[in-house]
Amino acid sequence: MRKQLTLTALPGIPDIHEGDEIGVVIAQALATEGYPLQNGDVVVVAQKVISKAEGRKVAIASVKPSPEAMAWARRTGKDPRLVELILRESNRVLRARRGLIITEHRLGFVCANAGIDHSNVCPGNEDNGWVLLLPEDPDRSARRIRGILQSHFGVEIAVLVIDSHGRAWRLGAVGTAIGVAGMRPLTDLRGQRDLYGRTLRTTRVGTADGIAAAAALLMGEGAEGTPVVIVRGASYQPGDGRLQDILRPRELDLFR
Amino acid sequence: MRKQLTLTALPGIPDIHEGDEIGVVIAQALATEGYPLQNGDVVVVAQKVISKAEGRKVAIASVKPSPEAMAWARRTGKDPRLVELILRESNRVLRARRGLIITEHRLGFVCANAGIDHSNVCPGNEDNGWVLLLPEDPDRSARRIRGILQSHFGVEIAVLVIDSHGRAWRLGAVGTAIGVAGMRPLTDLRGQRDLYGRTLRTTRVGTADGIAAAAALLMGEGAEGTPVVIVRGASYQPGDGRLQDILRPRELDLFR
Repeated sequence: MRKQLTLTALPGIPDIHEGDEIGVVIAQALATEGYPLQNGDVVVVAQKVISKAEGRKVAIASVKPSPEAMAWARRTGKDPRLVELILRESNRVLRARRGLIITEHRLGFVCANAGIDHSNVCPGNEDNGWVLLLPEDPDRSARRIRGILQSHFGVEIAVLVIDSHGRAWRLGAVGTAIGVAGMRPLTDLRGQRDLYGRTLRTTRVGTADGIAAAAALLMGEGAEGTPVVIVRGASYQPGDGRLQDILRPRELDLFR
Repeated sequence: MRKQLTLTALPGIPDIHEGDEIGVVIAQALATEGYPLQNGDVVVVAQKVISKAEGRKVAIASVKPSPEAMAWARRTGKDPRLVELILRESNRVLRARRGLIITEHRLGFVCANAGIDHSNVCPGNEDNGWVLLLPEDPDRSARRIRGILQSHFGVEIAVLVIDSHGRAWRLGAVGTAIGVAGMRPLTDLRGQRDLYGRTLRTTRVGTADGIAAAAALLMGEGAEGTPVVIVRGASYQPGDGRLQDILRPRELDLFR
């Protein structure tokens, strides 16, 4: 039998509002579609719908920038109130230039502008009135969605919360896992052998990030985007993984 | 209709030797499988089989290390002959520590150990006798494979040559495009609007790298690996793309 991996964009996810229970919304959309989950499926969810459900929307006019934010705003030409939010959401600034601040996010990963989003936040946002912060704790959000879907469908699955991240040396944003439940995000090949019995060059595979990148291909960014993708046929190690497992410890990071 | 993306690992690719024509090998495997290519398919090929076909195998005993290689070898604890090959394959060393040299490869991307591979090179390699360099020009290899497959099946497709790369701030290797034919590797969303009419936060999507990451999930690393994956249903912009399009220009790179 051919080894296959199938990704399906789940239609029918409505516009999400604060207080919505994303796991229930996904279960309803799957029921409407007649597409029940199966053991081993990975449900990939865009951070944006989770942030909306968690009420992570901030009115930019309500933000009072600190002197530090004012200084970075002068240096980058960004709105000082947005910079204030970026700093609040970050452990520290790593690099900055005109229009761009790259930080270590409070969740531990490195990304631009602390992942704060202007697009698709809410109607009437033409004047930059609202922005959306990343979910408070995407691992927790993933675990919550997983619990709801597992009891609804009676299956064992994994859930990933993903965002679109830039990379250090390459252009183009790719889907990246920022929340994990029910899987080990790295597949450990240490000790495995190659075709000819030698130990492998690559010892840890970024399975969760690979699945995230694949799912993001189907999500799109614009008005046609679908925030939930079901991945069937992915080979992963089930278990108690979390975002922290994927993050290179700062002392081993040669590029921070 | 549901939007779907299907990835199929192509069985029946034999062990590859110098002089093999990879496009023909893939066409034969597809014929044996009864799985003809369709318009819009992306054929993803692991760099290793292309390197083997191109005779990029080097006997480590044949390499005479330069004084510079000896110095880096002392610093990293690596075999000076391997270091010599890494330097020959690279524009410059970016970082080094025990067991690891990160360079800007002569092809322009940043990766560890110049992508030189010890595993799955050939039988009887238990003593590190042979290593495999990356393909001479992966874009050219991709174009060649594309030409053969397009005339064989009478379709318009894209071809990606991929490798497994580490990332700056995250653990785990992910599939990454190092050769491109028949597609624009970045999908340009500049000017597109979100759900509510605002311009998008993400303006360029790393489509080729996303497809590479997805395909690598099916390839595996060990003895069970399959070096060719057919991706069906991916949304991409056909055209004359190449690796260079994906590489962040050095002067815009804050982390080199």
